[in-house]
Amino acid sequence: MTKIAMLSTGEEVLHGDIVDTNAAWMSAEFYQHGFALAKRSTVGDQMNALVEELLMLSFNYDVVIVNGGLGPTTDDMSAAAAATASEQKLVMFPEWLARMEEMFSGRGMPMPDSNLKQALLPASSEIVDNPVGTACGFKLKINDATFYFTPGVPSEFKRMVTFEILPDLSRTYPQVVASECSRLFTFGLSESGISDVLDQLKLPEGYELGYRSYLPFIEVKLFGPKSGLETRVKLMQMVYKLLESNVVSVDEPMIDHIGHIMAEKKKTLSVSEVSTKGALSAWLQLNEQVEDCFGHSWVMAEPKESELEKSDPLAATFALAGATREKCGTELALVTGKLEGNTFSVALSTEAGEWGQVLEFYRQYSREDQRNVIKTVAADMLRRHLDNKPMFGTYSSVKRLKDMFIPATIIK
Amino acid sequence: MTKIAMLSTGEEVLHGDIVDTNAAWMSAEFYQHGFALAKRSTVGDQMNALVEELLMLSFNYDVVIVNGGLGPTTDDMSAAAAATASEQKLVMFPEWLARMEEMFSGRGMPMPDSNLKQALLPASSEIVDNPVGTACGFKLKINDATFYFTPGVPSEFKRMVTFEILPDLSRTYPQVVASECSRLFTFGLSESGISDVLDQLKLPEGYELGYRSYLPFIEVKLFGPKSGLETRVKLMQMVYKLLESNVVSVDEPMIDHIGHIMAEKKKTLSVSEVSTKGALSAWLQLNEQVEDCFGHSWVMAEPKESELEKSDPLAATFALAGATREKCGTELALVTGKLEGNTFSVALSTEAGEWGQVLEFYRQYSREDQRNVIKTVAADMLRRHLDNKPMFGTYSSVKRLKDMFIPATIIK
Repeated sequence: MTKIAMLSTGEEVLHGDIVDTNAAWMSAEFYQHGFALAKRSTVGDQMNALVEELLMLSFNYDVVIVNGGLGPTTDDMSAAAAATASEQKLVMFPEWLARMEEMFSGRGMPMPDSNLKQALLPASSEIVDNPVGTACGFKLKINDATFYFTPGVPSEFKRMVTFEILPDLSRTYPQVVASECSRLFTFGLSESGISDVLDQLKLPEGYELGYRSYLPFIEVKLFGPKSGLETRVKLMQMVYKLLESNVVSVDEPMIDHIGHIMAEKKKTLSVSEVSTKGALSAWLQLNEQVEDCFGHSWVMAEPKESELEKSDPLAATFALAGATREKCGTELALVTGKLEGNTFSVALSTEAGEWGQVLEFYRQYSREDQRNVIKTVAADMLRRHLDNKPMFGTYSSVKRLKDMFIPATIIK
Repeated sequence: MTKIAMLSTGEEVLHGDIVDTNAAWMSAEFYQHGFALAKRSTVGDQMNALVEELLMLSFNYDVVIVNGGLGPTTDDMSAAAAATASEQKLVMFPEWLARMEEMFSGRGMPMPDSNLKQALLPASSEIVDNPVGTACGFKLKINDATFYFTPGVPSEFKRMVTFEILPDLSRTYPQVVASECSRLFTFGLSESGISDVLDQLKLPEGYELGYRSYLPFIEVKLFGPKSGLETRVKLMQMVYKLLESNVVSVDEPMIDHIGHIMAEKKKTLSVSEVSTKGALSAWLQLNEQVEDCFGHSWVMAEPKESELEKSDPLAATFALAGATREKCGTELALVTGKLEGNTFSVALSTEAGEWGQVLEFYRQYSREDQRNVIKTVAADMLRRHLDNKPMFGTYSSVKRLKDMFIPATIIK
C-alpha cells in the first residue's frame, strides 16, 4: 500500500495562530480518493527542522504533500529546504518567472523584486500549476519519495490538490480505487447515539461509515466503491430508516433542502424572532431560494414588562406566529418566542393550522449555541411541515415540555 | 532549550473528519507560557504506527503531549501503545477505578464494564487528574522524554492542560518565563498591510508581535515578559498609534467594546437590515450589554419593485435610518441598505444627525462573507460614533464610493 504523509509548515500553524484547516480538508479528500494518509506533521520555519523532517519523511513514506512556505518573504523556505534535502541547487525557472510577470502586468503593476524568489526551485523540480497565485507548486523526488510542494493560501492549495495532485496520483497509482460517498445530515442525535444504532448494520466488504459534526448537525457518510452505486443506495436507505426521525436532509445541508422544497412548492415565508435575535432569518436567507420566498422578518425586542411575560409562553408564541402570518400575507410564518432560563418556544403557522412547542435545554450552553439550537429546532419544524413528516422531533440536547396543534378551522 | 512536541491521535483527526482545534489551542497556550512547540504530528489508531511515533518522539524531544485515545472503546489504544513503547505492563490503578465508580453512581447508574479499561495504565504512570470525565490522564517517561497523555474531548483536554500540565511544566522548568500578551483588534487591514506598518517598530529583546485572523478581524498580539508591564504598555501605545484608524478594540473583541460603551453612555439602539438579513442584529445581541440597550430591530425584505430601487441608494438608506430611529424612539438607529451587485450602503442615525456611506466590494465574496463584512462596516460606524472617532473608515476589502453627513438641524 502506498504510504502517504502530509507536512504542514509555518510558525503561524505550529504556534496555533492558524487552525490547520488545509490539513483536515486534504485528509478528507485524499481519504475519499483512496489515498488515506498514514501521518501528518507540522514544523515551523526553521531551516534545520524543515530539512530534517523532509528527510525523515522521505525515508518512511512514498508520497509526501508539503503545505506552505512558498511565499515571497524570507521566512518562506520550503524550496530552499527541498533543495538541501535533495542535495540540489535552486535554479530560476523562466516559465514561472514569465507567468508572474504576466500576472502583475495584468494588474497594471511591475513585479516586485521579492517575487523573483518564487521562481527559484530545486533543479530537478517539475512545476505543479497554480493558476491563481504567484506561489509555484512543484513535484520532486527526495530519496525514494515523491514530494508535492503546495501553497498555504487555502484557495490556491485546494485548487492544486483537486486539479493537479489527485489526478497525478491517480495516474501514478491506477490500481487505487476512489470511493464514492453518500451523505445524510441528522439533527438531535449524538455521535455515540448514531453509532450505537448503526452498529446493527453489517456492511459488506469495501463499505464504511464515517461521521462528521457541523454543530448542531452530524453528517453520516457512507463510503463505498464507485462501481457499487446500487448497493450503496440500498445501504443508505437502511441507514436512513434507522435514523429517519432525525434525518434533516440527504446529500445536501438542511438549509439547501428547505430551499429546494420551498421553491418547488412555491411557498412564501415570514419570520419573527424573539430568542434568536435575527439569527434564524439570517441563516435561512443564506440560501438563495429561501431568500426568494421571504416575505418579511422581524426581530422582536424582549418585552420587559408585558402581557407576554405573564401569559403562557406557548400561547404568546402561537399569537406571534398567527399575527406574523396575517400581517405579512405569507403562507407560512415561523417564529421563536422568549427564552426564559433554559426554556424556549417555537411555532409555525400554516394554511392548515398552527403548531407550537415549548422545549428546555438539558444543560448550560453559551448564548450563541443556545440560539443555534433554537433556530435549528424552528427550521426543523418548517422542514417537517414541507416534508410531510411528524411535526415534533425528539432531540438529544433539548427536552420537549409541551406541544400543541391548533387546526385552522378552530383559529378562524 | 526544552524541545516540546505534540502528538494527536485518532482516525477521525487523521482523515479530516475533525479539524484539530485542540492542537491549535494548545500550541497557542504553550507558546504564551514560554513552551513553544518544536513539532506536531498526527497518526491514526494503528498500534504499530502509534508505538513507532511514540518511540521516535521519545528520542528527539524532552516533553511530548499526546492527545486522544483514552476512551473506553477498542480503538482507543494510547495507554496500550505507551506500555509497549516503555516496555511496561498495563496495570489497574484502583484510585481511578474508584473515581469512575463514584462518577457513575453519582448519575445513578452502574459503571459499564467497558470503562474498566480506562483505569489500566502503564505501571510507572503518574495519574494526571481529569475531574470532568472518565478518561484518566497520565504522565510517563519513555526513554528520556516525559510524556503526558490527555483526553481528546476538548473541554477535558483544555482543563487538564491549564490546571495540571502547564503548572507541572512550570515547576519542572522554573527558568522558563511565561510571556504576557496585549492584544488589539483591527478591521479593514490585511495581515501583510499590518506587518508592513509594524515592521518600522524596533522591539526590545524579549518582545514579539503575532497576528491571528478572526475573519473579518485581525488580532495583533504583543508578547513580552511578565515583569515588563510598563514597557509593554508603551509599545502597545505605539502599535495603536500606527494602526489607529483601523483599531476597533483593545484587549476585547469589537462587539464587547461596543457593549461596554453603550452601557456606559446609556445609549439605546434600533437596527433595520436589508442586505444583512438579520445577521447584524443577531451578532450585536450576542453581547448582553448591547442586547440590554436594544429597542427593536427589523429585517426588511428587499422591495422587488419599489421606490427604493429607483431612487439613490444612499438616500433610501438615510430614509430607513431616520425612520427606524423615530419609530423605535431610540437614540441611535443603525441600518444596512440594499446590496446591488457589489455595492452596498450603511447608515447611522443619531441625535446629532445622520451619517451614511455607499461602498463596493473589491472582489467576489460568498453571500455569508459579504454579509459579514457589511455588518462589520455598519457596527464600525456605531463604534466610531461612540468612540468619538472620524465616522468613515478606510478598509482594504471595500472601496467607499460616497459618504455624507446630514446634521440634525437640517433634517428637522
